[in-house]
Amino acid sequence: MRLLLLNPNTTGAVTERLLAAARQVAAPGTELLPATAPRGVPYIATRAEAVLGGAVALEMLAEAAEIDGAIIAAFGDPGLGGAREMFDFPVVGMAEAAMLTACMLGRRFSIVTFAQALEPWYREGVEWNGLAHRCASIRCLDGAFRSIADVQEEKEGLLVDLACRAVAEDGADAVILAGAPLAGLAGRVAARVPVPLVDGVQAAVKQLEALVSLRPRKAEAGSYRRPAPKESAGLPAALARRIGGG
Amino acid sequence: MRLLLLNPNTTGAVTERLLAAARQVAAPGTELLPATAPRGVPYIATRAEAVLGGAVALEMLAEAAEIDGAIIAAFGDPGLGGAREMFDFPVVGMAEAAMLTACMLGRRFSIVTFAQALEPWYREGVEWNGLAHRCASIRCLDGAFRSIADVQEEKEGLLVDLACRAVAEDGADAVILAGAPLAGLAGRVAARVPVPLVDGVQAAVKQLEALVSLRPRKAEAGSYRRPAPKESAGLPAALARRIGGG
Amino acid sequence: MRLLLLNPNTTGAVTERLLAAARQVAAPGTELLPATAPRGVPYIATRAEAVLGGAVALEMLAEAAEIDGAIIAAFGDPGLGGAREMFDFPVVGMAEAAMLTACMLGRRFSIVTFAQALEPWYREGVEWNGLAHRCASIRCLDGAFRSIADVQEEKEGLLVDLACRAVAEDGADAVILAGAPLAGLAGRVAARVPVPLVDGVQAAVKQLEALVSLRPRKAEAGSYRRPAPKESAGLPAALARRIGGG
Amino acid sequence: MRLLLLNPNTTGAVTERLLAAARQVAAPGTELLPATAPRGVPYIATRAEAVLGGAVALEMLAEAAEIDGAIIAAFGDPGLGGAREMFDFPVVGMAEAAMLTACMLGRRFSIVTFAQALEPWYREGVEWNGLAHRCASIRCLDGAFRSIADVQEEKEGLLVDLACRAVAEDGADAVILAGAPLAGLAGRVAARVPVPLVDGVQAAVKQLEALVSLRPRKAEAGSYRRPAPKESAGLPAALARRIGGG
Amino acid sequence: MRLLLLNPNTTGAVTERLLAAARQVAAPGTELLPATAPRGVPYIATRAEAVLGGAVALEMLAEAAEIDGAIIAAFGDPGLGGAREMFDFPVVGMAEAAMLTACMLGRRFSIVTFAQALEPWYREGVEWNGLAHRCASIRCLDGAFRSIADVQEEKEGLLVDLACRAVAEDGADAVILAGAPLAGLAGRVAARVPVPLVDGVQAAVKQLEALVSLRPRKAEAGSYRRPAPKESAGLPAALARRIGGG
Amino acid sequence: MRLLLLNPNTTGAVTERLLAAARQVAAPGTELLPATAPRGVPYIATRAEAVLGGAVALEMLAEAAEIDGAIIAAFGDPGLGGAREMFDFPVVGMAEAAMLTACMLGRRFSIVTFAQALEPWYREGVEWNGLAHRCASIRCLDGAFRSIADVQEEKEGLLVDLACRAVAEDGADAVILAGAPLAGLAGRVAARVPVPLVDGVQAAVKQLEALVSLRPRKAEAGSYRRPAPKESAGLPAALARRIGGG
Repeated sequence: MRLLLLNPNTTGAVTERLLAAARQVAAPGTELLPATAPRGVPYIATRAEAVLGGAVALEMLAEAAEIDGAIIAAFGDPGLGGAREMFDFPVVGMAEAAMLTACMLGRRFSIVTFAQALEPWYREGVEWNGLAHRCASIRCLDGAFRSIADVQEEKEGLLVDLACRAVAEDGADAVILAGAPLAGLAGRVAARVPVPLVDGVQAAVKQLEALVSLRPRKAEAGSYRRPAPKESAGLPAALARRIGGG
Repeated sequence: MRLLLLNPNTTGAVTERLLAAARQVAAPGTELLPATAPRGVPYIATRAEAVLGGAVALEMLAEAAEIDGAIIAAFGDPGLGGAREMFDFPVVGMAEAAMLTACMLGRRFSIVTFAQALEPWYREGVEWNGLAHRCASIRCLDGAFRSIADVQEEKEGLLVDLACRAVAEDGADAVILAGAPLAGLAGRVAARVPVPLVDGVQAAVKQLEALVSLRPRKAEAGSYRRPAPKESAGLPAALARRIGGG
Repeated sequence: MRLLLLNPNTTGAVTERLLAAARQVAAPGTELLPATAPRGVPYIATRAEAVLGGAVALEMLAEAAEIDGAIIAAFGDPGLGGAREMFDFPVVGMAEAAMLTACMLGRRFSIVTFAQALEPWYREGVEWNGLAHRCASIRCLDGAFRSIADVQEEKEGLLVDLACRAVAEDGADAVILAGAPLAGLAGRVAARVPVPLVDGVQAAVKQLEALVSLRPRKAEAGSYRRPAPKESAGLPAALARRIGGG
Repeated sequence: MRLLLLNPNTTGAVTERLLAAARQVAAPGTELLPATAPRGVPYIATRAEAVLGGAVALEMLAEAAEIDGAIIAAFGDPGLGGAREMFDFPVVGMAEAAMLTACMLGRRFSIVTFAQALEPWYREGVEWNGLAHRCASIRCLDGAFRSIADVQEEKEGLLVDLACRAVAEDGADAVILAGAPLAGLAGRVAARVPVPLVDGVQAAVKQLEALVSLRPRKAEAGSYRRPAPKESAGLPAALARRIGGG
Repeated sequence: MRLLLLNPNTTGAVTERLLAAARQVAAPGTELLPATAPRGVPYIATRAEAVLGGAVALEMLAEAAEIDGAIIAAFGDPGLGGAREMFDFPVVGMAEAAMLTACMLGRRFSIVTFAQALEPWYREGVEWNGLAHRCASIRCLDGAFRSIADVQEEKEGLLVDLACRAVAEDGADAVILAGAPLAGLAGRVAARVPVPLVDGVQAAVKQLEALVSLRPRKAEAGSYRRPAPKESAGLPAALARRIGGG
Repeated sequence: MRLLLLNPNTTGAVTERLLAAARQVAAPGTELLPATAPRGVPYIATRAEAVLGGAVALEMLAEAAEIDGAIIAAFGDPGLGGAREMFDFPVVGMAEAAMLTACMLGRRFSIVTFAQALEPWYREGVEWNGLAHRCASIRCLDGAFRSIADVQEEKEGLLVDLACRAVAEDGADAVILAGAPLAGLAGRVAARVPVPLVDGVQAAVKQLEALVSLRPRKAEAGSYRRPAPKESAGLPAALARRIGGG
């Protein structure tokens, strides 16, 4: 199966990280097609950036050709609901996939990440999924970092400590290492945290493979049915075509 | 005070409706500055369109000059959270303002609108505001309509009936007539529904006037603090400048 | 418009504070009519006192003549639901108005006040409004105070510290300085707390002006419809008349 | 043990009904002391009347001599929280006792009563107890009744039908026949409804006997600790004395 | 009335403790019939052990002869829901009874117990009862203990301290001393904790006496109706007979 | 990978159905090891039967040799929480897997099954997973069926109709065809329901494959850590050994 690995951030090095981590768990027949946002910000961290990133994600999905499914690979899942309406293939988000996977590994999970700026956006993601009661905490590192591409190495020890505190102080049964720039970290540090760790993009690959294998039909009713065709103005051609019913 | 009345839809006739309804309740010293989305769809009805409209709304806000506050005048409040982060003036959404106002008029409110397509997006708006327990129902008309500009006249009787059913069958204490195209309808039909009606844009004008009068400081902490400056690529100039710390 | 500013406490000096703070934000055409409870306690602080104060508030409302709206100016909103049933003009509560206003300034608000005794009553007010998920914390000062009339000056520094802790430790995006005796304090200390502060009576004035401007009809159905006329025994004359259908 | 059976309504005939139903289940050593409100309304049905009734209930409790516990015998439990603060003996409410008892008889209970006017007040009682998720429905008869004293005979068949509909249509596992005027009805019609029925005053007697037997200490901390002594003005002597620390 | 006091643990000494505490509060006409699990673990502490204990509890109930009601006397109430389906007499659980009783003594209760291992199971019990919003905290002692039979004496001081911390730090209005091995402790230490303490088995005895006195009918509809007869294989004879419709 | 497909019902024909449906979606390297409960009931339908089935499931898991993961293949997931504590390999439940999968296909899902008796148990499963807000409805057929092995053919048309009603009347975006006896039905009727259908055992296979691929470590902290070794009496040998620390 051909799966689009869509990074709505503009940093190609993060796409590389995502791809490498994804490949570690992808099934033999899975082909991963990476894509990096052509415009936007280096890494989405706020609600405003997520709105912009969501719009870009929809454009990128409209331009994707012959795929069986797509991963929106920023942890807050920008544009996910809209993508499910508009497209016929399954789409999963990294936050959603990580949280649902974590629900099978613990009664409550914590989300651990590398920057305070991410917390409000991540919290809205938990709420959007209706999983607030299963979220023990969202823990974010203080302080600046040098490079988004290498933040996971720079902060590795601090992130492990934070995960351990989420277990000891917040009652987490599982910990999600969240944020595209942390892709691949969970596997490296699993032995240093006493509960299961979840890697967002790896969870997303497996959940998307699961969905594609189950071959769910496209909804023709309900809230994810495709909207009726509509005119638009000033949108990128592929997106306008899709909105127009193409 | 100068208030931006930002219509994230591309239909100018809807902006006119919004402006006319807003003027009916604006205080003497309030100046309303209408603006219509330069790109997007004629009326936002789905999650996908809301993401696109939210991005446009942020661009329009970045381009606004010398305003004291802004109303995002589409009922699902596209881009509202992001707008609150990025800008120093108060911003209100039409859905939020209508719901908060309705909370002072009833224990539970219903939302009544003209098209089934709007329901999923409106429901997410209720949930985003944490008001699901105060929402008795969302009721939407079936069937097509001729013109988004005149849908409120075309469907007036059916909308009144639907509002009355929300009261009788769902236990609504107040009813919100939702959607920018219905601006001004509530005042015309108030006598035909046995509970208070709330007009979204009128509620938004009064709530924004209230906020501006109270002169809240811009947050320097918490989830609506302004994000740190960040580079971007490919975004409209004013928006890029604002994201960049300008 | 003529708005009753009803203090259900018996302390006239608190009414003065409320009036002064209210006037700072009232619109040009707004006339504020202060009234102080003729019986009860100097300041309501507990559930029991709130029941007594609620009964007095209903009596005072029944005696009010030719008003366009009323504010119940004790933070727990004693008698608010009952007032909405019985009277034809809009009535707002200080807690409700402050919380709804705070919802437009932050995802979560904290309530900060001057005495531990108030906490249980305030918490029930949050729950009655269905806003527990948007309340980050209720923080109350320990220790005695000298005079209810001057507690805001006596405790100013401690209250500012407590508000700052609510931001830093509880994640509040906005802080409500709660309790009638703190009326006017928010404006004085706004620069010392890094998020927007909400003053209860000021929020109430603006929310009531908003409601009066929107001219909602009196409910004839739903839970705030006027109860059927009923006999009573031993109640004050004006209240008995109103209950009797007058 | 001596238990005050406090009817906050002014109708003595309802007090008689309550007493008769209570005696059917009271333990051998239980002495029931009936009391009828000296002022107020014949039967409390609205939020406003509940506030007035709550104030009267506190007065009556302050005047009670040498009792081991008290039942506030109107279904919405007017004044219950305040009573728990102010007094040293256990106090139970009829709604609370019925709902907690119903929780041991079913996953979800319905509340069935004789007049639509009661619904908003009862619903707030369910919410105050935090039991909304265990409440399948509140069902109220339409239409007038002849006499509050005899409404249970007049409406017996309709109430049984309504209870049966709550089971069949709402999924109730148990049904509470609510409202002081229905005291004693449940026992008479138990065979005609296919799930357990709960009689409010009978549940209250047993719950109060349970509490008195368990001899819980008066709280000296927490939200039901006794408030600090306070001056008051214009309140009945016994109540003023109690508020004053007596 | 004859009440089965069913200990689903295999430790007879704990049954003795339960019986002694139960007798302190049982009404004059109450006969308590103790029973100890014939197989299983010395004390149930985990979800897995609770499943095993629940199965044994159902077997023991099927073998009970001529009883008016039963208490499942392990704090997580193993098998309670199933018991209510299968049997015609009332059955109460120790956790449920303690929590419902605590709801009449405080707005929020804490649960305090002697071993960390119990926390997940107890938390699921709170959630099963839908009382998470009324639970201030679950606090468990760290560290090993010498003997399950005497843990309450060994840990008395530490348990009192923990209860006091639940009041001071978590806002508990009442504290449940949870776990069958702590039966009887609450009465001994009541004066050392500033809020009411609830003893699980004592609460259960009083709640079961209340239910038996109220004589609720066996449900013939709803979720606690008796299941249709069914064949089974390999189950103990009495249980198989009951499942088979006997 | 070797996955135990554990049917806690005693009906071998249902195990065959489960296995056939599972094989349709299993990945190339997945080996499915079916097992049927040696004692219990032909199909678990009630809380009581689920307790018994949960105990049997734990015994069967204790006896399983050299597996990489296990599916508890009855829709209410009997014994799932306990299994996660006791064993080192991942365990998934059919209800949980179906619901989490459905969360990626819709905002709200409905559960459709063949017998009213299952509803209370399924509802508790939804609540245990904390997904009540994402469950639009649980719909069950009325009426008897001839054979548990062939109920899916016998009731096919009625089940399709019920699924369609869940979409049209309850707002389901996805529908779970629930219950082990319906394994494989979803694939056959997918074209006749306008939203995605989820087959419980197929979802479970994919979710378990996902977990095994992600190689989560066994928790050494949190609520799914392995309990300390404990003595037991009268339990099957393998289970006793596992409880004893083996």
